[in-house]
Amino acid sequence: MTTACALIIGDEILTGKVQDANSYTLARVLFERGVRLLRIETVSDDIDEIGQTVRKLSGLADYVFTSGGIGPTHDDRTYEAIAKAFDRGLALHAPTLEKLRMDLQQRYPDAVLNDARKRMALLPDPCEIIGVERLWVPVVVVENVHILPGVPSLFSYMINGIKQRFRGEVCERIIIYTRKSEGDIAEDLSRVQHAFPSVAIGSYPEYDKATYKVMVTFEGVDVETVHKAARQVERAIDGFHL
Amino acid sequence: MTTACALIIGDEILTGKVQDANSYTLARVLFERGVRLLRIETVSDDIDEIGQTVRKLSGLADYVFTSGGIGPTHDDRTYEAIAKAFDRGLALHAPTLEKLRMDLQQRYPDAVLNDARKRMALLPDPCEIIGVERLWVPVVVVENVHILPGVPSLFSYMINGIKQRFRGEVCERIIIYTRKSEGDIAEDLSRVQHAFPSVAIGSYPEYDKATYKVMVTFEGVDVETVHKAARQVERAIDGFHL
Repeated sequence: MTTACALIIGDEILTGKVQDANSYTLARVLFERGVRLLRIETVSDDIDEIGQTVRKLSGLADYVFTSGGIGPTHDDRTYEAIAKAFDRGLALHAPTLEKLRMDLQQRYPDAVLNDARKRMALLPDPCEIIGVERLWVPVVVVENVHILPGVPSLFSYMINGIKQRFRGEVCERIIIYTRKSEGDIAEDLSRVQHAFPSVAIGSYPEYDKATYKVMVTFEGVDVETVHKAARQVERAIDGFHL
Repeated sequence: MTTACALIIGDEILTGKVQDANSYTLARVLFERGVRLLRIETVSDDIDEIGQTVRKLSGLADYVFTSGGIGPTHDDRTYEAIAKAFDRGLALHAPTLEKLRMDLQQRYPDAVLNDARKRMALLPDPCEIIGVERLWVPVVVVENVHILPGVPSLFSYMINGIKQRFRGEVCERIIIYTRKSEGDIAEDLSRVQHAFPSVAIGSYPEYDKATYKVMVTFEGVDVETVHKAARQVERAIDGFHL
């Protein structure tokens, strides 16, 4: 089984200023790639918090993906924290700096490549660099940790740009709906779950949908088994597809 | 300082079927109450994962809030996991069962109070019960762990219903906006951050807003200091309010 963990970095999430969208994006991409996301942890901009958490997650899964803290301002400390966590220094990465310089020149001709902006090319040393088409900012990799930005559109673009590198056993997923209540279908679900332990059956009530009360999902790597389990439940609970 | 951690429980989040909304709701409520949210952890429906994580978080903060896993189906295992984590058993809680029975009778006269539904009143024993107006389902408390449901509308209603119980030092927050780029304001922010270490200054770029490029936030418990820091930055970066 190929596994991953997510580390979402940023005071803005913990203080409720911004709703994290990146863990949802990441979860969908990883599911599509057959990589099992084991856990998501969200921490503040504190260097030690980031460092301790990234080291722990790094040991738990094949891959770690981080979001946030790689901009030019004082509260962007992810490169520094991850370098420190893995006993590395920081060094100006010349090719990245050059790409940043050219990007700045093209898009904001009046902007100055000052020290603040140069910090965005001050990377853990050594690190691996994965380029993403049409962007100056790379995905920086330290051991199994992939460092991505917090801005949601950029995060999504970059994780989709590199997702081909990650692949596990892709799960089949079937979703059925029912107008019955969770309390009335629970025994049927239990019975089928027991008969098909390799299929993950999930049950999610909705209180404000006109067309159904519960969404039931079936996931597993063996396509035929997933379909078999879903068919049994579908018959038992008057399930339908949307 | 009064602190909290959040534990979001559910395979549906980790497999990207559902975007977690509850940690955002919780973060806003806790900020409003002056309680500092230290971290958010999201785990699967696995009993040991839930148990180990809740114990760890319980030791890190004054309060833990959990979301998810308290319904009637086989994948709802939060009460069981938390009971086990704190070396408690599970017992049918008679007053909760009675409220559930009455609620069912009123709202779904044809529904049967079967074993699946009764599981929702099978609570860690002992536990503390906090009733929430107009709901049969209580907030169950084990040590400092407050157990809430995953359904977003219910989570929001319940956390708002009990929030008066939690109070720390409330932070003043000021938000200003600028049309300058992060790279051009970074030095000003650093300087002011250095002069006002008790104020948390955050900088958040937006790439798709017509009216501004960066949102800058100032938070701290001393109102006058927060305003002072914000005024200094506002002048330096041509900041404005929206």
